[in-house]
Amino acid sequence: MRTVGVLGGMGPEATIYFMQQVVGAVSARDDADHVPLLVDNNTQVPSRISAILDGGDEDPGPVLADMAARLVTAGAQALVMPCNTAHYYAAQVSAATDVPFLNMVDLASAEAARLAPKGKVGLLGSPALQRVGVFEPALRAAGMTPVYAQDAEQVLATIRSIKAEGPTKRAARILSDVSADMENQGADVICICCTEFSLLAKEIKAIVPVFDAMQVLVAATVRFSTSGEIADMPA
Amino acid sequence: MRTVGVLGGMGPEATIYFMQQVVGAVSARDDADHVPLLVDNNTQVPSRISAILDGGDEDPGPVLADMAARLVTAGAQALVMPCNTAHYYAAQVSAATDVPFLNMVDLASAEAARLAPKGKVGLLGSPALQRVGVFEPALRAAGMTPVYAQDAEQVLATIRSIKAEGPTKRAARILSDVSADMENQGADVICICCTEFSLLAKEIKAIVPVFDAMQVLVAATVRFSTSGEIADMPA
Repeated sequence: MRTVGVLGGMGPEATIYFMQQVVGAVSARDDADHVPLLVDNNTQVPSRISAILDGGDEDPGPVLADMAARLVTAGAQALVMPCNTAHYYAAQVSAATDVPFLNMVDLASAEAARLAPKGKVGLLGSPALQRVGVFEPALRAAGMTPVYAQDAEQVLATIRSIKAEGPTKRAARILSDVSADMENQGADVICICCTEFSLLAKEIKAIVPVFDAMQVLVAATVRFSTSGEIADMPA
Repeated sequence: MRTVGVLGGMGPEATIYFMQQVVGAVSARDDADHVPLLVDNNTQVPSRISAILDGGDEDPGPVLADMAARLVTAGAQALVMPCNTAHYYAAQVSAATDVPFLNMVDLASAEAARLAPKGKVGLLGSPALQRVGVFEPALRAAGMTPVYAQDAEQVLATIRSIKAEGPTKRAARILSDVSADMENQGADVICICCTEFSLLAKEIKAIVPVFDAMQVLVAATVRFSTSGEIADMPA
């Protein structure tokens, strides 16, 4: 079993949820059957949303690059980052070490293309994703078109409420409404691409298929740890 | 907030549960209010129970000492190990670095003495704890006497079932029966001192007070991270 390093803490509950999903994805008879993870549950990474939306004065990029380097020094053989918005800094993370970076945005874009080839994908995530086009290059490479929520403020408020209060039924209802809005804009598939929303993945209702970027990352993590294989990603 | 390093993976679900309890112990408005944890969820540590009970040929001690050193190199400012049985190797872990080791066995022994001064404490944990007397020095220092389950095989089978199947109602019933057995032997307080059993802490019923060593460690972890203070432990 190879050790996978996790750039975590964005937020801490999403990281824990990711770890739970990795445990749940393995059929285990004892501890040793599980994927070894080295987790920097770093709650002190400067806010990605603030840096992107408000031009916050602290740059998360160098902090994430440093976390990546320290995880590899401590023994990580590949890296993952269960926070979609933080993938804006993916190039810096990837450049900081020599080990593979299993890029959740690339993996999710490939999964969207598998579910709805050449279609439109509703990105149920932070407005910061749209502002700086975190998914655009990977989706373009996969022949997909993104669709975003029209009421960005409402989505942002929902992320903040989950970070403060945890996942609630009210948040799930809002996210189902946002999914319906994206279907009205022509979405053929909905991609949950905020790890706070992953906590509510089973509660989010839509007519088109819904998948969770985090689950795609979980599968890639288990695959790398057990086989050393790196999932195909769009160029 | 100081970063606490976690020697984890023994087992992975217990480590995740520890992380959840640390998140739950903090009143947070955003990610940054949470305790930063650096977690080696190392599922490949040689079995502590096998090494102690069966004289397994792999020694967990040097592996744990190496994990401790790597966590400190990666930025940990104190260390914790949410596995009671692994505290048999506490001296090796502690000697491997210069940062404080928040010893769960010492902390739990102090808590038992607070709840039932000079009394008997039923140790609801792995038979390996009794075999090598993991709690004995700390309990002696605190003026306490340990009481153990009479059917060690049943307790061991219950640990193995939780590692394989997760926490079940059946396991909770067995552990409540074991607690009653320890009360019959004169226990004034029950200490849950196996992190697999911590997953069932709310389900374990007894007449005397029951507390969970892991919860005591959670409190010490939050205290260190927020104030730098190290909880009093018996000499």
